[in-house]
Amino acid sequence: MIITISRETGSGGHTVGRLLAERLGYDFYDKEIVASVASKMGIDEKLILENGENMSDQDYIDMKSGFVPYYRKAQVPYEEIKEAQDKVIKSIAEKGNCVIVGRGADYILRERDDVFHVFIHADMEHRVKRVQRHEGVTDQEERVRKELMQKDRSRATYYRYFTQKEWGKVENYTLSLDSGIFTKTQCMELIVQAIKMKEKNKEA
Amino acid sequence: MIITISRETGSGGHTVGRLLAERLGYDFYDKEIVASVASKMGIDEKLILENGENMSDQDYIDMKSGFVPYYRKAQVPYEEIKEAQDKVIKSIAEKGNCVIVGRGADYILRERDDVFHVFIHADMEHRVKRVQRHEGVTDQEERVRKELMQKDRSRATYYRYFTQKEWGKVENYTLSLDSGIFTKTQCMELIVQAIKMKEKNKEA
Repeated sequence: MIITISRETGSGGHTVGRLLAERLGYDFYDKEIVASVASKMGIDEKLILENGENMSDQDYIDMKSGFVPYYRKAQVPYEEIKEAQDKVIKSIAEKGNCVIVGRGADYILRERDDVFHVFIHADMEHRVKRVQRHEGVTDQEERVRKELMQKDRSRATYYRYFTQKEWGKVENYTLSLDSGIFTKTQCMELIVQAIKMKEKNKEA
Repeated sequence: MIITISRETGSGGHTVGRLLAERLGYDFYDKEIVASVASKMGIDEKLILENGENMSDQDYIDMKSGFVPYYRKAQVPYEEIKEAQDKVIKSIAEKGNCVIVGRGADYILRERDDVFHVFIHADMEHRVKRVQRHEGVTDQEERVRKELMQKDRSRATYYRYFTQKEWGKVENYTLSLDSGIFTKTQCMELIVQAIKMKEKNKEA
């Protein structure tokens, strides 16, 4: 079984994925994909990290129109990054049993039926607190909130550009959970239960 | 605990809700709300059923512009229906422990923290089959598909008009499930597990 985890930044989706991989004894992929794509393309990891699941509104317009005025910076090679990333994700999936976080893996692997798509989200208050804790700050709430909203927007824009679908719509996922209500371990446990049910149904 | 179930037509959300109410010994409300609103307003149940969670694109434009040309039929009293419906749903919630299906109850009760919001969805293929079975037909697939797509659209339009939010976005729900993957009993079991977790966290 291949489990994809899509997540809002600050929702703890990465941790839920790691716990899930540990519990099931599956391979776990998150930043590993970025490193692999970067080495394949011979470009900086940072470029992949920033442009492999996010796209600014301006870049969206540039990409759609196919025209970038000279006074804007050289365009990010979105299409090339996407192509390399898709290849990496598909070859990971070929190896079987794994958990893949982010990178639009849900859409890339949509044709397979040995996949299980999860979305982890939380309300803004929980997400801000989680990011503050992660950064080791107790203030700057407004800055964190703005960055999270920007991240949501650029992730939805990227998803829309490459899939013509809306990011974060329930219909794209087998199971969605609000990690502001459940602990990360509880999220993991609910996912494990649901996966067992899906496997049982397939056998029947 | 008050459980709201939002669902796509043909996803089996009604049945999941009923099973859930039975298991937990909770009151169950679906069409009962329609009847109650109709009797309160002294108008036909059918009018409430059709316009208490659905809105056509044309009606949306009419409502937003506040102007309806004379050659279009008398406008549906959406605002009045909504107001009566909100009251009925809020008074049901006051009584406690219950399962409420549809009618935008998730949004109406959003301020309470003793609520648990579920969304049940399924892919078009499963939904068409479920509706065919329900109607006792084996053909007319194309007609059923079109009706379902129209229903999705009018439900999203209604939700957008009254909540300024997108219907079927993960962020509005504590838990979302694909009932094309799980049986209705499994959906119910996963929801029960998740509710127990939420209650445990509240006690802690």
